[in-house]
Order: sequence, then C-alpha cells, then structure tokens
Amino acid sequence: MGSKYAVGIDYGTESGRAILVDVATGEELATAVYQYSNGVMVDHLPAPDDDVSLEFDWALQDPADYLRTIQETVPSLLRQTGVVPSEVIGIGIDVTACTMLPTTADGTPLSELPEFRRSPHAWVKLWKHHAAQPQANRINAVASERGEGWLSRYGGKISSEWFFSKSLQILEEAPELYQAADRLIEATDWIVWRLTGVETRNSCTAGYKAIWTKGEGFPSPEFFGALHPGFAGIVAEKMSSDVVSIGERAGGLTEEAAEWTGLLPGTAVAVGNVDAHVSVPASTVTEPGRLVAVMGTSTCHMILGQKTAIVEGMCGVVEDGVIPGLFGFEAGQPAVGDIFAWYVEHGVPPEYHAAARDQGVDVHTVLETEAARLRPGETGLLAIDWWNGNRSVLVDADLSGVLLGATLETEAPAIYRALIEATAFGTRVIVDSFKDAGVGVEEIVACGGLPERNRLLMQIYADVTGLPIRVARSSLTGALGSAMFGAVAAGSAAGGYDHIVDAAKRMAHLKEEAFRPDPAAHAVYDLVYAEYRRLHDYFGRENDVMKRLKSIRAGVLAT
Amino acid sequence: MGSKYAVGIDYGTESGRAILVDVATGEELATAVYQYSNGVMVDHLPAPDDDVSLEFDWALQDPADYLRTIQETVPSLLRQTGVVPSEVIGIGIDVTACTMLPTTADGTPLSELPEFRRSPHAWVKLWKHHAAQPQANRINAVASERGEGWLSRYGGKISSEWFFSKSLQILEEAPELYQAADRLIEATDWIVWRLTGVETRNSCTAGYKAIWTKGEGFPSPEFFGALHPGFAGIVAEKMSSDVVSIGERAGGLTEEAAEWTGLLPGTAVAVGNVDAHVSVPASTVTEPGRLVAVMGTSTCHMILGQKTAIVEGMCGVVEDGVIPGLFGFEAGQPAVGDIFAWYVEHGVPPEYHAAARDQGVDVHTVLETEAARLRPGETGLLAIDWWNGNRSVLVDADLSGVLLGATLETEAPAIYRALIEATAFGTRVIVDSFKDAGVGVEEIVACGGLPERNRLLMQIYADVTGLPIRVARSSLTGALGSAMFGAVAAGSAAGGYDHIVDAAKRMAHLKEEAFRPDPAAHAVYDLVYAEYRRLHDYFGRENDVMKRLKSIRAGVLAT
Repeated sequence: MGSKYAVGIDYGTESGRAILVDVATGEELATAVYQYSNGVMVDHLPAPDDDVSLEFDWALQDPADYLRTIQETVPSLLRQTGVVPSEVIGIGIDVTACTMLPTTADGTPLSELPEFRRSPHAWVKLWKHHAAQPQANRINAVASERGEGWLSRYGGKISSEWFFSKSLQILEEAPELYQAADRLIEATDWIVWRLTGVETRNSCTAGYKAIWTKGEGFPSPEFFGALHPGFAGIVAEKMSSDVVSIGERAGGLTEEAAEWTGLLPGTAVAVGNVDAHVSVPASTVTEPGRLVAVMGTSTCHMILGQKTAIVEGMCGVVEDGVIPGLFGFEAGQPAVGDIFAWYVEHGVPPEYHAAARDQGVDVHTVLETEAARLRPGETGLLAIDWWNGNRSVLVDADLSGVLLGATLETEAPAIYRALIEATAFGTRVIVDSFKDAGVGVEEIVACGGLPERNRLLMQIYADVTGLPIRVARSSLTGALGSAMFGAVAAGSAAGGYDHIVDAAKRMAHLKEEAFRPDPAAHAVYDLVYAEYRRLHDYFGRENDVMKRLKSIRAGVLAT
Repeated sequence: MGSKYAVGIDYGTESGRAILVDVATGEELATAVYQYSNGVMVDHLPAPDDDVSLEFDWALQDPADYLRTIQETVPSLLRQTGVVPSEVIGIGIDVTACTMLPTTADGTPLSELPEFRRSPHAWVKLWKHHAAQPQANRINAVASERGEGWLSRYGGKISSEWFFSKSLQILEEAPELYQAADRLIEATDWIVWRLTGVETRNSCTAGYKAIWTKGEGFPSPEFFGALHPGFAGIVAEKMSSDVVSIGERAGGLTEEAAEWTGLLPGTAVAVGNVDAHVSVPASTVTEPGRLVAVMGTSTCHMILGQKTAIVEGMCGVVEDGVIPGLFGFEAGQPAVGDIFAWYVEHGVPPEYHAAARDQGVDVHTVLETEAARLRPGETGLLAIDWWNGNRSVLVDADLSGVLLGATLETEAPAIYRALIEATAFGTRVIVDSFKDAGVGVEEIVACGGLPERNRLLMQIYADVTGLPIRVARSSLTGALGSAMFGAVAAGSAAGGYDHIVDAAKRMAHLKEEAFRPDPAAHAVYDLVYAEYRRLHDYFGRENDVMKRLKSIRAGVLAT
C-alpha cells in the first residue's frame, strides 16, 4: 500500500488554511490559503446590502466564505502535490468558536434566503461578536440565582461569546428570525454537515461553548425558560442532544462535496473541532502533565486530566473535549501578541521604527534585540497584562493594563520586555491555579504564531514559570491537528489511525530546541512575580479602580 | 526725575538670563542670555582636565561661568536699550539652590587654584548633584536619633541636594580640600560677594537648604560633631551665623564689578536669592492665600503664612524665606514638564512626530490639540506622576511612575492627557495638605515655562484643584523678581522701593485671562482624584513594590 494523506482545514478569523499531510509521518506536503472575500463584518453587511449597518460590538461572517475556502484550497493541494484522490483518506476541520449561525432544516443558512439576507441576525456570529453581553449577564445572574451546578465548571461565569448568549440575542432582537431558524449550529458542525450531509454536534464546542457535559447534557428547559419563555425549547427544537465525541467520523463526503474538493465521494470526514483544541495533539500532547499554549494575538492554554477538577476561574473543563477519554481544561489570556502589537503601534518612538527600516526587519525584532540585552529584574518595571481584560482566574473583561515603575530613564526596550514578562506572569498564574487544583503541569508546549518569531519571549516564559518549554514543529498546528483527526476518522483499516493518540505518536513532532529555565533568572523572577501576584489580587479583588475608571468613562461618553 | 531701572539676573541650570526692568512699571526693556561655556558637568571636568571623570550622580558647574554671565549680559542690556548707568539703581540675582562651592577667605573658588583644579570637590556642586545621598541618609538618621527639633519643619527628612549633605561629602571624600576651604557658600551668596566685596548669607537658602531658622540659627555643633568629629565646627569655621534677610541690600558694586557690568560703582546689590522664591512677588503674591506654582521641568509650590505650621512632608517653612515678615512654605513635584518630555521622547509613535513636522509645530502641540478633544474622565486612564519620585507629602525619591487603565484602544493623546492629569492630581495633594494644616489656598498663580505653552494643562489644573488659576504676565519671573529685589535694595530714596510688597504692587502683573474650574469637569475629576489618592496612599504607604523593584534592579546591576 502506497502513501496515504489527510487534509486539514483550519478556519481562522480572516482566512481558511488547508494542508495536505502524510498520514504516516505528519510531513506537510502543501498549504493553501483562502482569504475570506467578505472577511469580518463589523460595520455593515456585504454588498449589495452594504447599506445595512451593524451596531457596536457586532462581528459577522459569511458562511459562503467557508465553502469557498474548501473549493479553493483542497483542489490546490492536489494540484501542488500530484497526490491523487484515492490516496486521501480523510478530512478534518476546525473553526474558531463559538462561531454560530441559524439555518433551515436542510442546513441552508438564513443569510442565503432572500427574506432574511438583510437581517444581521441571519448571518454567522463570529467568536468575537460581543454584542450579546446583556444576554450573558442575564444567563449568569439567572444561573447563579437558580444555583445551576454547571456554573462552577466555567469559573462561575459564561461569556458573551458563547452559544446561548448569542442565541438568546437572536430570540430577543429578531424573534421572527429565531422562529424561522430550524437549527442553531456551530460553524464547525455546519461545515461538516455541508461536507457529509449529516448533522452532527461535536463534544468540544458543546462542552466548552454550550454548557454541555457527557453525563448531564445541556442545561434544563426550565433554566432556558427562566431566561425567556420562548427559549425553553431551544435544545429540543433547534439543536440536537445527540453530541458526538471528537475523534469520531461524522460521515463521508457527499457527491457535491467531492466535486468541490476533487476528492472521492465517501472520503471520511471527522466531526467538527476547534482551532486551539486540535492543536493539542498536533503539539504531541495526548496525556496529562504537559500544558499546551497556543500563542498568538491571544493565548489559549490547554491541559489534560484523568478526572475533573474545579480550577478557579477557568474557561471550562470538558470530558472528551480535547482527547477522547480525558478531561480537557482550558484557560486563556485574551491579549498577548495583541499587547505587543498595540505597543509597537501606540508606544514606540520613531527611532526604533527607523532602525527597523534600516535593518530591513520589523520593529518587534529591533525591540527584542534590545530587550534581550536587559537581564531579569533590570527594567525596574512591572506590567499587568490586562490590556483586553482577564479571561482566566479573575475572569473579568473590565480589568485593564498597568505599567508601574517608570522613571525618566525608562526606554522603549525595557517597556517591551516588561510587557513580555507581564504575559509570562499571567501564564504563571494560570499554571499555579492548575497546580493548586491538583492538575499537574511539568512542561509547556508552545505553538501558534508567537513562539516561532520571538525566542526572547520563550526564554522569559521558561524563566518565569520555571518550566521547560518545547515548541511544536509545525507552524500550522490547527490544520495539522485537523488532518490528524481526518486520519482518525478514516481509521486504521483505511491506512489511518483508530485513536488520536496513535495519530499523534506518528504525525505530531516537536522542534529539537528546548527552552530551559535558568535558575538564577528564575530566582529573580520569583521576586518580581510575587509583586505581580500581589497587584493581581489587589486590582482583581480589592480595589475596583479599573472598573470605576471604565464606569466614569462610560458615563462621560453617554453625555 | 527720569525713569529708573533695575537689573535682575536669573542663574538657571544651563544659562544665565538677565533683564532690564523699568522700576516704576515692571516693563521689561531688554533681555540677554549667556549659555554657560562649561554647562553642567556630569561626566568629567572641563578641558584641559577633562581626563578627570566624575562618578555617578555628580553634577558640577564652573563658577567662572557665573561671572562671565554678568560680563556678557549686563553690558548687552545697556547697549540694547540706551539706558545709561546712572539710571540703573539696583541689581538682584537668583540662583538655583542648593548650589554651593568651597572658596578661600577672599572668595576665590578652590577650583581656580592650581593645586585643586583637578579635584572634583573643588568645583560648584549644582543643585542636582545627588551623590551625597549617603551623607543625607546619615544626617536624617542621626537627627532622628537625637530628636532634633528642626527635622519636622522639613517633613522629617532633608535631601541629598542640601547644603550640609554636600558639605559632609566634601569632608569625607576630600578631607584635605575641606581643610583648605575657608568658606563653604551658596553660589547665590558667592556671586553677591564677588559683586560687592561683602560676604553675606541670605535667609532664603539658609532656611530652605541649610536648616537655619531666625530664632534658633543653625543646628548645634554637637549635632554636626555626631556626624563626623571634623564637622562640629562647620558653621563657626566655614560659614557665617550672621544671616541677612532677603530684601536687604548686600552692598554696592565694587570698582571691578562696575567695570564688568558697565554700571556705576556703588550701585545697590540685593542679598542673594533663589529662582523659585523671587518668582513669588514677581507673580504678584506677597500675602497668604495664593499659591505660586513655578512650573517647568519640575514644579515648585510656594505659599505664605502669618505663622508657622507643620505640613506633612513639605520641603520646608522659613520665616523671611520668601517675603520678609511672613513664613514661606515650599513644596514641590520633582518632575512635571520632564514627564511630558520623557513621554514625547520615549513613548510617542511616529505619526505624531510626522504630524508635528507637517504642521510646523512641536509634538507637544499636536498631542495637546488631540488631548483637548477628550473630556475629563474619558481616557479611562489614571497615571501617578512619580517618574522622578515624590518630593512632597510622601518625600520618597524611590517611588516611580504608574500608568493604569490601558486597553488595546488606548492611544497616545489619551496617555498624554493622563500624564497632565497626574501632575495636576499631584498638585492637588499638596494643596490639600496645606489646607489640612490650616494654610489656606484660594487661588493658584502659575509662572515658569509650562503655563505659557500649554493652555490645556492650565485648564486641567483648574478643573482638578477646583481653584481659579492666574498666570504671571512675565515669562521671566525669576529675573523680574531679582530686579524687583534690586529696586528694593536701592530703596525709595534712590527711586526704588523700601519693601518688596511695594515693588510687587507696581512691578508685578498677571495676565488678563483666568482659568476657572468648570463645575462639571471638577465633579468628574473629584471621582478620578479619589482613585489617585487611594493609589497614592497604597503605593506610598502600604505596598512598597516600587522600592522592591528598584532594589531588585540594583541587585541585578551590581552582579
């Protein structure tokens, strides 16, 4: 039997990225990217309906972009490599979450029906659509009042980004459209539905974004009814309580989808999955003890456990949520690379921009080089990394960033280093919280865009956490992980694998280099971290100055 | 009798500035500036001894630059105006303080003797020479142990900048030079000595910088002896306990000085004075209730009282220190304009620099215009203005700057505004401390470089403090104030005045425009100030994180 291949498609915020992977080795043979033609819609709907404007905090996508991604990228992979359709045994996909849409019973998005296309609520609500905050607040208040047991699994608070917040917003703001929607579904499940003709609901998004557990299912109709009488039947009427574990086969490619892709009808398709979560096995992690940090504009932290645990302020813990048979714990920092980007755009004086131009590198590289000359503790600065709030432990979007220790001698590279250190301290708080709850962390495996680009950042994370850090070999762990799940959907009989653990052993790899904590640096950072931790608790729990400043600001802007 | 004129010379850090003023009206007829040829020496002595390097925190000047200032500027004033020597009735000078030097018995600076010129301790120690911190620490410790009563007048702590700190450093580090010095003297008194041939010691620097009071004189020989056996006799041996009140005539110009200046021998010379202090009557303030803020790179606050009072953490209270017959209270913020300059140099991205170039203005102007579009409370930011420590109330050089409330949407003008607001909050803390101690403040009179240039800053100060702000008409209140004291030294019989209060009535003026607090803005700032005040006390008194960060930094730099 010759080589076998799998396709993984990673749907990001601005584009979809597909790769073709050798199932035996994980070798990435080709990549193809499709930039969404309608991108992220935040101001108005796409033409010809671009006179319909969107309110503050909205963020939509066009489901047609997801299908165009398939149609553009998969044929390109085959063309680039000469791989023939019979050699491709499976496909997996992952999408940002919660990214959801309303459809008819046959899966047609309401945005594709003439009667609804001018209604913003008919379109895909992207993960960063934050306009459902009032609904999230009410969900939290009602759940707390009713003593809903599931609330503690999500750190006591669910987010405006999540499935029921967004669904309730549709019901309240566009009741007729809510009525017309036969289904409300995660984008990842909708794409799988379009590929296979089979509607499935995956355990990952159900667990992390839709308050589902293996044992108890979804919250009760009584709970939903307490939010809004018309909401009581949402699960029975618009969803499916038949949740399929990730790692399963959702179905085979339909004739239509085979035509889109150039692959054979019946080719195995994995159940839908999520970008950060498929990165875990793609980073070689399929067992407890190693924390995966998907580091980009924000950071998502995932770690596996044999049993559930209540970890303070976590994003969630889901059985079968990441690796079938294990509990997956998720935490996050809502701004990491975004802070460095903000700083370069809004805080770095001209000389560093000029130096970057002269050297033909980006400003980050100039700052990193200068910042690397400073030793731990040398900046005299301490920053708190809450430029976009805090997502884990404190779980408070209204917290904000701090820079402390500035003097007339403070220069930009010191601030850049302090910002990197601040995000490392934020990661250490999360690691410590896991450890305190009995979820051991022995090593960090980093993946995503940042670790590739910034060696100083990796060393600082090792020195701050005191943990060794390895970096995933692939720079596309999302797409690779999806391809791995595609190989698992195909199964060993077809040349794939029967379990994601087996796939990870062969297809996932780490880079050779490890970042090991320097004991002297770690000792200094222990001192600075103690200061960070004290201010973390002071501003997070004792002095609500950040919230009051936001509230003063909101009051001023309202007049 | 025709018009009469007075000359005022204001010795700043980098240059000396002289003006010729009409005694009857305060009209400024001409200005002349001399840039010190040897400037501020921080790295090495001037050529040919520039192989002698200076240690960290040293800052020296060349006394010859002070005489060159006189020789260059005064003749220029006469040339520019056609005023004849007989019309000039008096001269006054002011110098930064404590700026001091060792001399022989005839007033020759030791730096002008061949045997000492290569010794750094022979030169003028400028106010910002901070290398005597160990000596200041010991003075404070010994004074506290011995229960010296004067300590409370200076907020419980004297500074490394002050006279006895600097003198003790000379004794300890260059004992042979200390022995050779017949006199240790403030630069302002030394210049007056060179002009008149008469050695005087003025009540202003004696009181504010050399722990002297009208009733009690200087600290006791026992106290000085407790610091160092060789220091016991400093007052009797190297100084003079005959302190002359500011407002008095020190003497008349010598033949030699008349030749330098082109003025007549015998022309009245006022006793030496200090830049910030002469600005008080030059800003029309000669009575209690109006606080003078001399605003430049740093801010000096002065207010008058009928009686002494213990005000928490003030720089000092001196009878006859500012206006004869009244107690002068002094407080300060060690970085104000310096913070804005730091921000423009180290924190403002290229687009604002480009806009400044395009518009032909400086970056401050661009930022001010943008920041003025924001309303009080709108930035969502709160800064603490301790970029150069805190000089009043907390009196702690190891405190450092804070910016809090940053988000990914924060832009440079908002930070600029927050920095201005922070310095205004710092001023309000000082105003409140005066009020709490029974020293009333009804109005602020601003002078110095900043108020002229930044209207937004003035309005923010009014809105934050809730006090009306007036601005001195003269942009050279130092030189004007000195000229006023020159007119007082001449006396009414010569066409001048008998008291500085009389001189102020005629020669000092305010600009027409007043900045009045906007009640709505003041109400918002009351809320933000409450947050500032809470963090001021937290970082100043509860959580020593800033000191620990500095200590961690020092530890790292020492290895």
